[in-house]
Amino acid sequence: MQRSILSSKKLPSKFKAVISYEGSDFSGFQVQPGKKTIQQEIERVLSQIFQQKVKIVSSGRTDAGVHACRHVISFSAITDLSPLKIKKAMNGLLNSNNISVKEVCYADYNFHPRFDAKKKVYRYLLTQFNSPFLVKRAWYVAEKLDIPGMRRAASFIVGTHDFSCFQASGRKVKDPIRTIEYIKIQKEYFCFDPEIKVIVIEICATGFLYKMARNIVGTLVDVGRRKIAPEYIEQIISSKDRRLACATAPAYGLYLKDVLYE
Amino acid sequence: MQRSILSSKKLPSKFKAVISYEGSDFSGFQVQPGKKTIQQEIERVLSQIFQQKVKIVSSGRTDAGVHACRHVISFSAITDLSPLKIKKAMNGLLNSNNISVKEVCYADYNFHPRFDAKKKVYRYLLTQFNSPFLVKRAWYVAEKLDIPGMRRAASFIVGTHDFSCFQASGRKVKDPIRTIEYIKIQKEYFCFDPEIKVIVIEICATGFLYKMARNIVGTLVDVGRRKIAPEYIEQIISSKDRRLACATAPAYGLYLKDVLYE
Repeated sequence: MQRSILSSKKLPSKFKAVISYEGSDFSGFQVQPGKKTIQQEIERVLSQIFQQKVKIVSSGRTDAGVHACRHVISFSAITDLSPLKIKKAMNGLLNSNNISVKEVCYADYNFHPRFDAKKKVYRYLLTQFNSPFLVKRAWYVAEKLDIPGMRRAASFIVGTHDFSCFQASGRKVKDPIRTIEYIKIQKEYFCFDPEIKVIVIEICATGFLYKMARNIVGTLVDVGRRKIAPEYIEQIISSKDRRLACATAPAYGLYLKDVLYE
Repeated sequence: MQRSILSSKKLPSKFKAVISYEGSDFSGFQVQPGKKTIQQEIERVLSQIFQQKVKIVSSGRTDAGVHACRHVISFSAITDLSPLKIKKAMNGLLNSNNISVKEVCYADYNFHPRFDAKKKVYRYLLTQFNSPFLVKRAWYVAEKLDIPGMRRAASFIVGTHDFSCFQASGRKVKDPIRTIEYIKIQKEYFCFDPEIKVIVIEICATGFLYKMARNIVGTLVDVGRRKIAPEYIEQIISSKDRRLACATAPAYGLYLKDVLYE
């Protein structure tokens, strides 16, 4: 029931929201008929709050199983509700504890979550112990990983390159050039069980081709397993050939940490 | 099929094992008819490995929903399998990813996981943000907590006291005196979402009465919410009256961190 602007004398307001979700129970972010997705659940809640059909615009899509700390979306609605009230209503109406709204604020009318994004940060969690607290949350790799080797390999990936080698096979974009600002590989504290550490690969880039983060991780892990030498990465990148890079890392270890704007 | 010791010329070997589990899917540790428990799952696996009925002895019980980083058990079996092989077989045969065997080693024939335990350490996780990564893993408390006040309250609990006030109502033990060595309350790094922190209450004691850890946490949280003053704790303890202490904290925030021996 979109009210006519003339009759209501009100223009729709534009909002930006930051969403966190545990992706295990969802078939990814984007709406798919007959499947439970994050977008669908958020649009259902917003349509209920505003009593009008609301479509969201997203900063990107995530695959089934992928998690997010700060997934940015926008939406417009004719409403008098404050951003804080909207946030509380969303959290109250969401059916699933697996989605949480962190922030809602007003956005410029021209704001576009995807086109305006300057950088994205992904984190990938690996574990060397099959902890019950990491099921569907981290990739369990049994072989001892050579972290210094992985860091050396990462140093060849950082920078501006044609990243066709890390793009999902069959996919093509006009411009496969992206800039990776940094790749950090570190052991991190694990509050659920301080006896173990998780290995985190954090990647910050101006953009990611489809499956690029998971393909980089899969290749770095093969360096860690000493299946390929760190220096071989240069050859993989210059080949622009997906077949030279290694298998894609599983979705459930990946976390969209943040989407950064100006 | 217990083989006679005379005919096999072998005595049973005694093993100590350390188990980690995510308690959400279980009706607690101890075997209960018709319910899925951790003990039942471990005994099923051990009986399968040794082709004989195996009963375990546990360092203690945990309630439904409680988690463990290092729950110590022991068992005896007539076997030639090495501890490492037993550990691998257990992890291979466990039906659930929610239980993991960390260690198996030989134990002295007289070793008893409960009677020989000198100290136990519990951790309790609290969150001030309803993160999807903390569902069934931490207690979400919306009110801002006064951490210094909670630390001051904890200082009255540490030491040797009659802890009847923190014992589950209706329960009685002959000797309700225990020694709490320390209570640490700190904000910890959260690798699933570094934007947030978890508040961890870690309690080390010579022993815990039934529900004592969760009753201490419930009372400390009420201090944090400024419902009761830190100094009131002294009165609660000296009363020896469960009704003066506060509501029991939910099971799903509690983690058995370790059981310590000589």
